Amino acid sequence: MLSLYSQNLENAVNEIAKLPGVGKRTALRLALHLIKTEPEDVQLLTDRISKLKTDICSCKVCYNISDHEICDICANPKRDAAVICVVQDIRDVIAIENTSQFNGLYHVLGGVISPMEGVGIRQLRLQELFDRVGKGDVKELILALPATVEGDTTNFFIYKNVKDKVPLVTTIARGIGVGEELEYADEVTLGRSLVARLDFDKAYNKNTK
Amino acid sequence: MLSLYSQNLENAVNEIAKLPGVGKRTALRLALHLIKTEPEDVQLLTDRISKLKTDICSCKVCYNISDHEICDICANPKRDAAVICVVQDIRDVIAIENTSQFNGLYHVLGGVISPMEGVGIRQLRLQELFDRVGKGDVKELILALPATVEGDTTNFFIYKNVKDKVPLVTTIARGIGVGEELEYADEVTLGRSLVARLDFDKAYNKNTK
Repeated sequence: MLSLYSQNLENAVNEIAKLPGVGKRTALRLALHLIKTEPEDVQLLTDRISKLKTDICSCKVCYNISDHEICDICANPKRDAAVICVVQDIRDVIAIENTSQFNGLYHVLGGVISPMEGVGIRQLRLQELFDRVGKGDVKELILALPATVEGDTTNFFIYKNVKDKVPLVTTIARGIGVGEELEYADEVTLGRSLVARLDFDKAYNKNTK
Repeated sequence: MLSLYSQNLENAVNEIAKLPGVGKRTALRLALHLIKTEPEDVQLLTDRISKLKTDICSCKVCYNISDHEICDICANPKRDAAVICVVQDIRDVIAIENTSQFNGLYHVLGGVISPMEGVGIRQLRLQELFDRVGKGDVKELILALPATVEGDTTNFFIYKNVKDKVPLVTTIARGIGVGEELEYADEVTLGRSLVARLDFDKAYNKNTK
């Protein structure tokens, strides 16, 4: 342990080092930087961090984070409420939004079924998803969960529960990443990308047709 | 730029991303972590960060950071006030303290002379050092500045100004790092370590004599 000769510095370093991916040395570097920063800027940082807890809530419809009861995506009348994309996490919403390829709504599960990590059906927002879908307005449910055993398990569980309520259940394509070399792809991915091969014309001219 | 669909989240991410070495993606990861953290823990983090500005000052003697007017090192009667080690930065104080090989006091310059970066003599605590040394109680001044052109320039400037006031001015040894292979050392360091070669007996039995 570093000895720091200032209890206030040591306290700050200990708290900053609790952040994920931040070790004691990085925490010390950040704390020393903050000591040299203008008081107004430090004030701004701490205010904005506090507001993460006080002014952000979970959207009542999709469980995305939001500044209001209903998030901007769910409240947007231009978005297609008949298509719901199921994701694990808020980060996935951000990632998909940044592709600009999706115009429906989301449902943030809050994780995937993982008995190893103690995440069961009740810890996730699965019942909320089934209730949402049960209203009968949803035309397509897109499963965009991680391509892991846990993700697949969750996919199957959702599919089993919604298949009678939704006309179309899809899952995002697995395959070789754009810009990726075939020789470095694992054989399962490569195998699946062969099985799920696409009509050339459709794959390359999707956006123009 | 990531679009985040929450002004509060975006504000927090922007502030966190101003920290050194923290990009937008890391800032987002930290902010999402904080959203999930218990309110008391976030409160503790922001309080401790605020205290860095309100409750930490600069030691009036050595300019190390301190919770009091005089820092714990300067206030410690067991430390040898006749030996002063000149360092660039608070981090160097912490690094030297962690070696447990030094029992004197420090003088934190706040940088080194670097015209390229606009750091001149007046931006550093050089006059304060000369005043401290001028009182005549200092027996040895150890220069522990970085082994760069700027560090060397500052070393020479200090030496010129204190040589008549201090019986002994030393500088920390330059040489091959412990555990380092000779073939990977640059030739200047290797050359200096040959010129400044040590009596074997002294080098290996220093602590026992």
